Amino acid sequence: MLLVQKYGGTSLADVSRLRAATAQIQASLDAGHAVVAVVSAMGDMTDQLIAKAQVFGDAPKRELDMLLACGEQQSASLLGMCLNEKQIPARAYAGWQLPIKTDSLHGIARILSIGARQLRRDIKQKRVAIVAGFQGVDKQGNITTLGRGGSDTTAVALAVALKADECQIYTDVDGIYTADPRLEQKARLLNKITLEEMLELAALGSRVLEPRSVALAAKNTINLRVSSAFHKPGEAQGTLIVKKGDKHMEESIVSGIAHNKSEAKITISDVPDKPGIASRILGKISEANIEVDMIVQNVGSQGTTDLTFTLHRRNYKHTHHILKAMQDDLGAKRIYGDTNIAKVSLVGLGMRSHSGVAARMFAALAREGINIQVISTSEIRISVIIEEKYVELAVRCLHAEFQLHRKHP
Amino acid sequence: MLLVQKYGGTSLADVSRLRAATAQIQASLDAGHAVVAVVSAMGDMTDQLIAKAQVFGDAPKRELDMLLACGEQQSASLLGMCLNEKQIPARAYAGWQLPIKTDSLHGIARILSIGARQLRRDIKQKRVAIVAGFQGVDKQGNITTLGRGGSDTTAVALAVALKADECQIYTDVDGIYTADPRLEQKARLLNKITLEEMLELAALGSRVLEPRSVALAAKNTINLRVSSAFHKPGEAQGTLIVKKGDKHMEESIVSGIAHNKSEAKITISDVPDKPGIASRILGKISEANIEVDMIVQNVGSQGTTDLTFTLHRRNYKHTHHILKAMQDDLGAKRIYGDTNIAKVSLVGLGMRSHSGVAARMFAALAREGINIQVISTSEIRISVIIEEKYVELAVRCLHAEFQLHRKHP
Repeated sequence: MLLVQKYGGTSLADVSRLRAATAQIQASLDAGHAVVAVVSAMGDMTDQLIAKAQVFGDAPKRELDMLLACGEQQSASLLGMCLNEKQIPARAYAGWQLPIKTDSLHGIARILSIGARQLRRDIKQKRVAIVAGFQGVDKQGNITTLGRGGSDTTAVALAVALKADECQIYTDVDGIYTADPRLEQKARLLNKITLEEMLELAALGSRVLEPRSVALAAKNTINLRVSSAFHKPGEAQGTLIVKKGDKHMEESIVSGIAHNKSEAKITISDVPDKPGIASRILGKISEANIEVDMIVQNVGSQGTTDLTFTLHRRNYKHTHHILKAMQDDLGAKRIYGDTNIAKVSLVGLGMRSHSGVAARMFAALAREGINIQVISTSEIRISVIIEEKYVELAVRCLHAEFQLHRKHP
Repeated sequence: MLLVQKYGGTSLADVSRLRAATAQIQASLDAGHAVVAVVSAMGDMTDQLIAKAQVFGDAPKRELDMLLACGEQQSASLLGMCLNEKQIPARAYAGWQLPIKTDSLHGIARILSIGARQLRRDIKQKRVAIVAGFQGVDKQGNITTLGRGGSDTTAVALAVALKADECQIYTDVDGIYTADPRLEQKARLLNKITLEEMLELAALGSRVLEPRSVALAAKNTINLRVSSAFHKPGEAQGTLIVKKGDKHMEESIVSGIAHNKSEAKITISDVPDKPGIASRILGKISEANIEVDMIVQNVGSQGTTDLTFTLHRRNYKHTHHILKAMQDDLGAKRIYGDTNIAKVSLVGLGMRSHSGVAARMFAALAREGINIQVISTSEIRISVIIEEKYVELAVRCLHAEFQLHRKHP
């Protein structure tokens, strides 16, 4: 098989971790596979580089990307040396060397195309190609970065370009659990999960994979596997994220519970209910490059409406400021928000055909005295916003309610 | 004027040094000049990166270059941020972005050509272009490095490509002295020195500039200036290294004294004196990529000859080994060497027309009881090899003999 293996920062944090990654690659080669490795920056290197830049205030994004790209370039070259030490032929590449072409949005660039010719040559000549993740080059030859978690995106994009059999994400967790094992001891490792479910889980703050990489895998039906880099090669199978059709027929109703404590909520209340209000509000926010997550609008009785949305806490102040400036113009009575909230979500393909999941969820929360502030649903997900202090309790009571500790047939 | 300013590692060692470099650039801009900055890696970053690589034994050179190039990429981007903080428009470039094209000899690559189009555009648009020194890219798109002191070479090569008015090397010394001020307190800072003299001084171990960059400047008649980065902008003029014709008519006989304690000496004695012996010996050494410095051959009386050469101490053992393997083949009676030697050299254009300089030099050393092991001369230089322990004494007695503490008219 052709495998794209991505090694995250904790999987490359020091020399012993680099050697462990080398052993994993060696084991894959010994099993007859071809390997293309994608690497993140080592340990907290990216944070260290950001700290260096922050000394100079609002750093120009072009130069910031040039700085940050060094992190992955270093780990790529060091992994190359580590493989060489074990007599494994290897070649390391920075993003621009393939090239991984992106647009010019520094810090949040999107991959436009991948030059796979050199990688194909390496595969043919039985060399391990090592690619610096997270980075690319724009049309003008400037170094760009893909944003946090960008190395996962690089790995999936390479798997797509190379038509790889599997994209394996080696990280510091064993795979995808039914809930965060730190909150719920009974949380169970899932052997398989569908891309659709994973997409919802990723978007909902299960920090194992970036939503973007899952979406890219889903779009291109790439088999993704999440495994721990902290086991001996072959010992841990992790979680395979499969195309919908590949999963067992008899699937559980609910696959997992995700939670997210990094969001804030903002409500614009009593806005005259005219067409285009939502787009005016969200348009302004989008112009400021702020991403919103849940959006809920209730039509009121007085010809007015309330719009509530959630966004990352770091953008709360800025967004509040933008909205305050628009308040008169919008005719909104109040603009208020809350940063002490958490989002808890049930995810599962089984929900589609099983009505009553939402009712069971709300009842379970009510029994624990947890008030639900906002509800939002998709076909395979139900999310609620609750007070932050209840998040652990909510995860545990839902885990028990849907018996996620038990393995379904 | 168009200035290429090179900032060395100590001139960029920390945030305060980066700000000092920024102030220097600002002062140059305020004076109406255009500036292209070339940067080395910050402080001991290169050594740190080398230490990381050494963990993996004999690192592959291609990946080592990829690792080392991060040092200059980081300092280029950080200087860009620092300029941006002071509202000075700037753009940082890695070597491959211009591109600085080199051959493929990783670790000791030579510059083949420089793409100056982007730099010209920056100059036109009143932006400071910052170029990562020491690095380039080969025809196949691999990152290469130019070897130690490579940033000086980058700076001079850019000055040539841009037809700059002056190439200014900002470093941790005030300029070129008549002797090493740490050995001779009376050593005097030279305001001017010719490129020819500087070339000899650089090659002789005056560690201010790499010989390669001086040679490149000489070949292209670029005005080089060496200044301290540790003075306030404008306070220190340093030493201007000028084309021959620019120097005062009445020049001193001897400009300076250089010394070098990093060499070793090897002698192949009693070799049958046949044509091609020297080339056979030195050919083998050159094949091993070992550079030799002085080469002295004496024809003996018995149809045999002695060949002595000096080389860097780090290559002594390897070279000795190579020669031992050739000994029978060469018919050499003995191969022996010494690592406890030093080279002391007088340099000065005035020597050309003043006979007797060598005699005065040898007499001064003899008076101090310093034995001369090897002598080698060029038109503007006389070098002797002496026992290492005498080097300070030799420098001081020669400095006094030629009255270098006095400024000549």
